[in-house]
Amino acid sequence: MKYMLLNRRQKKICRHFIDVVKKSNNWQACIVLSSILLLFSSYAVYAQDTASSIEVVTGELKVGLDTLWVVIASILVIAMNAGFAMLETGFCRRKNAVNLLSKNVIVFAISTIAFWALGFGLMFGDGNSFIGSPNFFLSGADNSPMVADAYQGVYNSLNWAGVPLSAKFLFQVAFAGTAATIVSGAVAERVKFFDFLLFSFFLVAIAYPIIGHWVWGGGWLQQRGFQDFAGSTVVHSVGGWCALTGSLILGPRLGKYTKDGGVLPLQGHNLSLATLGCFILWIGWFGFNPGSTMAVGENIAYIAVTTNLAAAAGGISGTFVSWILAGKPDLSLSINGILSGLVAITAGCSLVSYSGAVTIGAIAGFLAVIAVYSLDNFKIDDPVGAVPVHLVNGIWGTIAVGLFADVNVTQDETIVGLFSNGNFNLLGIQIFGVVSIGITMIILSTIFWNVLKAIFGLRVSADDEYLGLDIGEHGMEAYSGFSSSDIKRNQ
Amino acid sequence: MKYMLLNRRQKKICRHFIDVVKKSNNWQACIVLSSILLLFSSYAVYAQDTASSIEVVTGELKVGLDTLWVVIASILVIAMNAGFAMLETGFCRRKNAVNLLSKNVIVFAISTIAFWALGFGLMFGDGNSFIGSPNFFLSGADNSPMVADAYQGVYNSLNWAGVPLSAKFLFQVAFAGTAATIVSGAVAERVKFFDFLLFSFFLVAIAYPIIGHWVWGGGWLQQRGFQDFAGSTVVHSVGGWCALTGSLILGPRLGKYTKDGGVLPLQGHNLSLATLGCFILWIGWFGFNPGSTMAVGENIAYIAVTTNLAAAAGGISGTFVSWILAGKPDLSLSINGILSGLVAITAGCSLVSYSGAVTIGAIAGFLAVIAVYSLDNFKIDDPVGAVPVHLVNGIWGTIAVGLFADVNVTQDETIVGLFSNGNFNLLGIQIFGVVSIGITMIILSTIFWNVLKAIFGLRVSADDEYLGLDIGEHGMEAYSGFSSSDIKRNQ
Amino acid sequence: MKYMLLNRRQKKICRHFIDVVKKSNNWQACIVLSSILLLFSSYAVYAQDTASSIEVVTGELKVGLDTLWVVIASILVIAMNAGFAMLETGFCRRKNAVNLLSKNVIVFAISTIAFWALGFGLMFGDGNSFIGSPNFFLSGADNSPMVADAYQGVYNSLNWAGVPLSAKFLFQVAFAGTAATIVSGAVAERVKFFDFLLFSFFLVAIAYPIIGHWVWGGGWLQQRGFQDFAGSTVVHSVGGWCALTGSLILGPRLGKYTKDGGVLPLQGHNLSLATLGCFILWIGWFGFNPGSTMAVGENIAYIAVTTNLAAAAGGISGTFVSWILAGKPDLSLSINGILSGLVAITAGCSLVSYSGAVTIGAIAGFLAVIAVYSLDNFKIDDPVGAVPVHLVNGIWGTIAVGLFADVNVTQDETIVGLFSNGNFNLLGIQIFGVVSIGITMIILSTIFWNVLKAIFGLRVSADDEYLGLDIGEHGMEAYSGFSSSDIKRNQ
Repeated sequence: MKYMLLNRRQKKICRHFIDVVKKSNNWQACIVLSSILLLFSSYAVYAQDTASSIEVVTGELKVGLDTLWVVIASILVIAMNAGFAMLETGFCRRKNAVNLLSKNVIVFAISTIAFWALGFGLMFGDGNSFIGSPNFFLSGADNSPMVADAYQGVYNSLNWAGVPLSAKFLFQVAFAGTAATIVSGAVAERVKFFDFLLFSFFLVAIAYPIIGHWVWGGGWLQQRGFQDFAGSTVVHSVGGWCALTGSLILGPRLGKYTKDGGVLPLQGHNLSLATLGCFILWIGWFGFNPGSTMAVGENIAYIAVTTNLAAAAGGISGTFVSWILAGKPDLSLSINGILSGLVAITAGCSLVSYSGAVTIGAIAGFLAVIAVYSLDNFKIDDPVGAVPVHLVNGIWGTIAVGLFADVNVTQDETIVGLFSNGNFNLLGIQIFGVVSIGITMIILSTIFWNVLKAIFGLRVSADDEYLGLDIGEHGMEAYSGFSSSDIKRNQ
Repeated sequence: MKYMLLNRRQKKICRHFIDVVKKSNNWQACIVLSSILLLFSSYAVYAQDTASSIEVVTGELKVGLDTLWVVIASILVIAMNAGFAMLETGFCRRKNAVNLLSKNVIVFAISTIAFWALGFGLMFGDGNSFIGSPNFFLSGADNSPMVADAYQGVYNSLNWAGVPLSAKFLFQVAFAGTAATIVSGAVAERVKFFDFLLFSFFLVAIAYPIIGHWVWGGGWLQQRGFQDFAGSTVVHSVGGWCALTGSLILGPRLGKYTKDGGVLPLQGHNLSLATLGCFILWIGWFGFNPGSTMAVGENIAYIAVTTNLAAAAGGISGTFVSWILAGKPDLSLSINGILSGLVAITAGCSLVSYSGAVTIGAIAGFLAVIAVYSLDNFKIDDPVGAVPVHLVNGIWGTIAVGLFADVNVTQDETIVGLFSNGNFNLLGIQIFGVVSIGITMIILSTIFWNVLKAIFGLRVSADDEYLGLDIGEHGMEAYSGFSSSDIKRNQ
Repeated sequence: MKYMLLNRRQKKICRHFIDVVKKSNNWQACIVLSSILLLFSSYAVYAQDTASSIEVVTGELKVGLDTLWVVIASILVIAMNAGFAMLETGFCRRKNAVNLLSKNVIVFAISTIAFWALGFGLMFGDGNSFIGSPNFFLSGADNSPMVADAYQGVYNSLNWAGVPLSAKFLFQVAFAGTAATIVSGAVAERVKFFDFLLFSFFLVAIAYPIIGHWVWGGGWLQQRGFQDFAGSTVVHSVGGWCALTGSLILGPRLGKYTKDGGVLPLQGHNLSLATLGCFILWIGWFGFNPGSTMAVGENIAYIAVTTNLAAAAGGISGTFVSWILAGKPDLSLSINGILSGLVAITAGCSLVSYSGAVTIGAIAGFLAVIAVYSLDNFKIDDPVGAVPVHLVNGIWGTIAVGLFADVNVTQDETIVGLFSNGNFNLLGIQIFGVVSIGITMIILSTIFWNVLKAIFGLRVSADDEYLGLDIGEHGMEAYSGFSSSDIKRNQ
């Protein structure tokens, strides 16, 4: 029975009180007092033990609740791979479907191994302000789910999350995979399969972790107050820069731009799949943004609402802007409008008001349409619109935090945008971060594309491109039993 | 140290006791007593503080757990948009696929904005028993997640849910979007794109919130004890009535009914997508029904099981009834049987026994097949079966509550159906509610379809219908690179 | 106020103490003491009540948290039906798509009813060590979520899971459905629809529950320490054995093996769908494996990571092994590599290290490729690769536990594999279990296939097979409006 167990200090207090009363020469009072004290003191221990054991129980429940949420959010983000696969394949031509599907199915596998082996340590390991420690294969001490000062281990930049290391890794590897899969669409229908696999490995193992360390791993941009809640910059524009440089270095697809300056639309072969992909990505984003809390709080619902409002606003704006410009509502721009709204709200989803989210999303949809048209002017051939969606709106979303971050939402006087208090500080930091990361990624990705080009050659032969990569690279076709339309052989 | 902090009342009690002892002329006892009382009283404060801080912690955990569930359930319901998109597109003809996809992709975007701007306030705002208060854009006071008497704000009808307002909105906006998307399939292949967008806005901003207010927002039907747990009536038959009136006002598709009374099956172009859509909807319903608890209790698993049993029974019944009637098992009726089971169990999923759920589902599958055949007799052309699934079984499911509500499940003597205690009370209320809402929705939707018809014209030109809305309305086709079957040009 | 409520025992103690003091003839002390005792004792009741009510609250939270997780994991597993539907349909020919879709859509409906009516009781009911008690329709006492000794009911084998019976059933019915759906692909394109439905009913109602009872229901293999955490054997190889016997008894599809010993690839008609199916299954496995904990603990994230690592390793290994053997990377073997990794890690996901998971997955991908090639050598025609994925790797994964189970992960000296401590014990039990279950399933499934063959005939007519089962069995086609490629009519 715990009733009888007094600790040393309690026994001391007990004896001291008894001594005082003894000196008062009233032995009955002494008996009474000592009895009472014993009883009371022992009860105090019991109550204290109860309280601390309850604290353990509620602590475990909190860790369990947060872990459950991180696991579910991770699953939603991993599901985005299916979304990207359907979106990119649907937006490309039938003759390259197997290639697109293969790239998307294998890129998350490669990302998983690359981020486990190298990326996670370089991104979140303690290291210095430029790069994390080389804690490969999740090695190194770690007593998660302990947090803050109670945390002891080599991944201090994640010590704010009260979940086990396995949960942290699961969520972060899902993110890393997203960055890689963004590139796939922009270089589609002409890049060699093997080159793409190597580029993905490089991106997830080295480049993405470096940028990620700067912003989320305790690096120099994080120290300066750069805000990117769920990765408009870290994930989307990092993927977007690689998409842009890849597209430029590869050059446009055969037949896309005619010699007389015309632009030939090379239409996607399956808009049902592309639309399904859009829906899956929309759903997955509810893991991507609210999940970045890595904890269950009231704000997970708030972030889900801002995310959804921005997606809706982006979709409506993309639809109507394209309708006005082209005379008919363009499904592919409705889809890219939605995705643009989602990318743009990613940085600020926990920092802006509902109306701020709607504004950010609406502008994102507009920017996407403009960017799609502009790329053709520059003869940059991006089959699925990865650059307008992920790069342009990754940048816009990050800068938008500097404009719309609302002190009523952030509850932090240091994280507040121009339109909330007229202060340019945060906006300046955001622009500085976007530019720094942009320059870095342009350099890193250009080097790596060119190394691949020098060693293996980056582009399939013109014959393979004409016949389709499915035959050339994979020796199979996606839709056996359906006859091709003969009119547009190039399609 | 909390030990030393006594509150006023405790100090008063302390002094009072000391006075009593003082009068007894025993000063030693007085000293002893006052010491003890001080110690005890201060400890009581500590214990009380501990208890109340534990209460705060467990309270936060409960709110967190419920919020997590509501967010996840909302995501599942939002995923139903992907299900409807695939189902409707797959069941329609290839030449209208882009149109169907566009409608489904944009309708949730419009619903989001419409319900945020107008619908939520009109549905759940305090207002009167007919309509909610005009708390547009989620405005007005609200101290959620406080519940019951502790709740202070303008959305009292949702004060039973211990989650933040953002979570309430997220779940409800997902529901509102479902009502709108139901209409899409019934008016498919002939309605103008812009008209559909406007009708969706009207439905989500005004009509659905009015009906919803009656049943879930504290309105007159709720006051009378009308039971519709997750919306067989509020969501599905509201959407279903709009589908019926829209289909009637538009008239059948060209070529569907021949002059000599024949019925030409205009077969869906992609049953793989339609089946995928059915699966996604089945999955989504696990958010729709169990999520309507807006709290984690033991009943979420119970509701998931009744939901699943009804879906299974509906699928089996739809399959075998169609097999018997047509000689071969019809995939589209297997699918619609499953969906009918799901719609029918929606009202009573938390109120009926397992065998009740199986019975309701089996009858739903039967009704769906009969309704599909009957509609053709009345020359009502509903390309995807929205009326048999959502209207007929929305009605059946709501009435079934009056038959099957089981007091062992509801634990409430006032919510009990005819077959449980032989009492017609609940059945009467259910039928009354179904009829009242039916009449209202027929009137509202008819007015709005006709206003649209008068201003913009409701139906595309015969040429556009013949060529397909994809070319006519959107200027693009869904499956570039696949040749069309020439035999059935109209297909 | 609880302060004034003393229970009988407390009043007794109180009176006893007062008596003692009374005898000391100091009436003031007596007054003081009695006052204090009253106050203290009453407070103790309050504190005790608080503590026990807090225990109730935290207990309810724990049950709620676990129930939520089991429901979500069940939903993910149920979603695997969509994955199997898309995978199998995509890997088969266009002319059999409706048949594949119909089988997959109805098989979970039948499984639901069969497992509710018969299977669950036979699997988890107390019974004897060979078969569970006939608690049909979830009948029998059950006071879940009580656990361990506090549990009273007829399903003692599940008394370790602190969730309501409805949650246990939901999760287990999802598993049962998976076993049935595995068979579908191997017998595709030639089995009669009605035979397949009957076989599924038999499998889910009788055969699967018997094996399940042995391993998870307290049966003889569980008593011997056989380890199969989430069902590499119980689910996947049980389904796989039925697939193998079905495939053998049916014989190969017409035209698959030419008279001169050649093998004609009968290519799948829609690799986009098949890839989507792979992604859905990958996602669903995050419910399948981590959900088998039926409780939220830190290990859910750990299991998710081992699952994901094995999938990734299997995908990479399948891709590169096929690339080396065939000269080009084969998408279908990338997909089957991933699925093989998932099947193989299922038994040991909670028992092996991360590097163990990678090794198991990599070997699984290799085995899948070898098995695909080998089956053709034996002229065993398995259109979708169900045998290589589910049978071969179900066996491999179960045996791998005997090799890789790591005492640092299992924290249990009795569950440790050969490579961890050089002990053959567990390996022996694992092999013994695999062989026992294999022999049983070969016998049971062979009997049942042959009974069906004798009564109804198992295979469609050659005409129906040539024209496609869609026309022959269902009277409809999946892709109306798309013209067929005439070159390969048999495709």
